Amino acid sequence: MTSPQPAETRTRGRSAQTATLAEIAREAGVSAPTVSKVLNGRADVAPATRARVEELLRAHGYRRRRAEATRSPLIDLVFHELESAWAMEVIRGVENVARETGLSVVLSESAGRLTPGRTWADQVAARRPHGVVLVLSGLDQSQRALLTSRSIPFVVMDPAGDPGGDVPSIGATNWQGGLAATRHLIELGHTRIGAISGPTRMMCSRARVDGYRAALETAGLPADPGLVRTGDFHHETGYRQGLELLRRPDRPTAIFAGNDLQALGLYEAARELGLRVPEDLSVVGFDDLPVARWVGPPLTTVRQPLTEMAEAAARLVLDLGRDEGSAAATRVELATSLVVRSSTAAPPVL
Amino acid sequence: MTSPQPAETRTRGRSAQTATLAEIAREAGVSAPTVSKVLNGRADVAPATRARVEELLRAHGYRRRRAEATRSPLIDLVFHELESAWAMEVIRGVENVARETGLSVVLSESAGRLTPGRTWADQVAARRPHGVVLVLSGLDQSQRALLTSRSIPFVVMDPAGDPGGDVPSIGATNWQGGLAATRHLIELGHTRIGAISGPTRMMCSRARVDGYRAALETAGLPADPGLVRTGDFHHETGYRQGLELLRRPDRPTAIFAGNDLQALGLYEAARELGLRVPEDLSVVGFDDLPVARWVGPPLTTVRQPLTEMAEAAARLVLDLGRDEGSAAATRVELATSLVVRSSTAAPPVL
Repeated sequence: MTSPQPAETRTRGRSAQTATLAEIAREAGVSAPTVSKVLNGRADVAPATRARVEELLRAHGYRRRRAEATRSPLIDLVFHELESAWAMEVIRGVENVARETGLSVVLSESAGRLTPGRTWADQVAARRPHGVVLVLSGLDQSQRALLTSRSIPFVVMDPAGDPGGDVPSIGATNWQGGLAATRHLIELGHTRIGAISGPTRMMCSRARVDGYRAALETAGLPADPGLVRTGDFHHETGYRQGLELLRRPDRPTAIFAGNDLQALGLYEAARELGLRVPEDLSVVGFDDLPVARWVGPPLTTVRQPLTEMAEAAARLVLDLGRDEGSAAATRVELATSLVVRSSTAAPPVL
Repeated sequence: MTSPQPAETRTRGRSAQTATLAEIAREAGVSAPTVSKVLNGRADVAPATRARVEELLRAHGYRRRRAEATRSPLIDLVFHELESAWAMEVIRGVENVARETGLSVVLSESAGRLTPGRTWADQVAARRPHGVVLVLSGLDQSQRALLTSRSIPFVVMDPAGDPGGDVPSIGATNWQGGLAATRHLIELGHTRIGAISGPTRMMCSRARVDGYRAALETAGLPADPGLVRTGDFHHETGYRQGLELLRRPDRPTAIFAGNDLQALGLYEAARELGLRVPEDLSVVGFDDLPVARWVGPPLTTVRQPLTEMAEAAARLVLDLGRDEGSAAATRVELATSLVVRSSTAAPPVL
C-alpha cells in the first residue's frame, strides 16, 4: 500500500502548504477564527462568507496540518445505494477493520445519485472522520477539495466511473472475471453465448462484458451484438432481458448474467418458459453472494472478494491518513475467481 | 408513541435529578470537571477514579440535563450480527429516518455476543448520539446506567430476550405470524406439519413456534414433538434439520421453516431427497426477504415489515430524546402478514 510516490504528487503536496490559515483569512477579509469555523463545518458563518473562504481554500490547495486536525474515532462509508445484498459484504469488511482499530463506522447513502450531496460533505467535514470509503460513488471537484482541505483521506471502492488517476481506489479484476466465466462456457461446448451487462455508466460492468467479448474472439466465435443486453444489476432486469434473449428463435444455450441478482432473474425467466437450468440453459453469475449457494440449482459464478476489497479500502484510507504525503495514485485490483457449481453443463444436443 | 406514562416512571425521573454533578464530585472526592470528563467519555481519567464516579452516577440515578448534553448529529445502530440479509432491511429503515432528520448512522456489531462490549458503551458515551437502536441485542445493567446518565435514549428492535418492562422496544407479531403460517397449511389439508424454530433463547422464535402449536391445537390436530426441530435462523440448519425431518418414515407433508433462510436450506434438503416443492412438500418461511420472491418456487412466507420496524424504532428513539420524561414503558408490535406464493399446495395423495 505504501508504494513510492511520483515526484509530481510530492511537489503538489509542498506547494499546497504555502498558504497559511492567516493568509487565507486576510485574503477573504475575515478573521482567522472564521476560517477555522469554516474548516470545522460550524453553522455560525454567513453562507456568502463561507463560500468565499471555501473558494480560497480550494484555489490555494490549502491542506490542514495533522496537528490542527483532531479526528473523531470514525470512518465514513458511503454507498450509492443500500438496496443490494452486495452492500452487506462491504459493510462487514469495513466493520472488521474499524473494530480492529477502535473506530466506528458511519454509514450513508448517496440515494441513487452517483455523487453524495453537498450536505453530506459538510457533515463529513464537521465530524472529521479518519477517512472516507466511497462505494460505487464518486466525488465532484468541490467535494474533493473540501475533504482535501480538511486532510480527510478518501478511497473509492469499485469505481462506477473513471475516478481519475490520482484517486486511490480498490477494485476487482472484472475483465478477467468476464473472461473466465465465458471461457468456462466455451470449454463446455457452448457456441451461442449471451450476456446481460450491468449499467454501461459503471466501469465494472463494461469491463465484465469486454472480458466476455475477448473470450469469444480469442476462441474464434462470432460476438453477436443481438445476444448482449443491458441491465442494471437488479433481479428484475435479469428477468426481463432474460425473457427477451430466451424467446429468440436462435436463443443462446448459455448466458453470462453480469451479476448474481440478474442470474436469479434469469432463472425465473427460464422457469417461466419451461427451460431447465443447466440442461437447456447454462447460467453464470458474478459476485458470489451467499444466495448463490442457496438457490436451485446452486449458481456457477465469478467470486468477487467483496469483504476483502472493503477491508483493503478501509486499511488504505487509514494508511493515507497516517502519512499524508502518500496520497499518490493508488489503484489496487483484487483477483476474482470462477466458482463452478451446478448451473452450467454441456449444451443440449439439438 | 407519546402514550401517558405510569406514575412510577415519573417518580423515578424526579428522584434521579436530586444528585447534582457537584454532589457526585464531592462524594467521589474529585473535582466537578473530572466528573464531567467521565460523562464525556474522555480518556484522561484514571481507571479507578472513573470506576468510582460511574458507580456513584449509577447509585444516584444521575441523569444529565438536556442543556448540558450537546449531541452529535448521529444515531447509533447496533446489530447482534451483520451476517443476515435481514440486516440490510433494518439499516435501510434507520437510514431513511436519519436522512429525513439530518442525522448520520453509526453502525456497530456486538459480534455474536448478545450485549455489546464495554468499549462500545464508552465510545457511545464519548460521541453522544441522539439515540441508540439495538437490534436483537440487549444491554446489561451497567450499560443501561451509562447511557441513562448521559441522557442517551435507546430502543430495542425485535428483542432476542425479555428486554424488561421499562425498555422501549419495537417488535412484530411473531406469534400471530406462526399462527397464520400454520393455519394456511391446515386449510390446504395438511395434517402432519413440521416446524424448524430459531434459537430458543430468542423470544421471537419461541413466539413463532408457539403460534404454530396454537394453530394445531385449535384445529384439533396432535402436536408431535418429534416434528419440531431447533435451528439458528441460518440456511445451514434449515438444510440439516430439514434432512432429518424429511428422512423420517412418517415425514411431514408441510413444514413451517421459522424464517426464510431456513426455508431455503429446507428447499435444498428436499432437492437432495428428490422431493418436489410444493407437490411433495409445502414450505412456509418467515420475514419476506427480497430473495423469497426470487427462489424457485417463489416462497410462501410471513411478511415481517423490517424496514418499517426499523423506521419506527429510529423515530421512537428520537422522540424519547426530545422529551426526556417520556422514557416510559413502550412496546410496539407491528403486524405480520401471510404472503402466499408457490411453495404451498394441498398435500400429496398417498
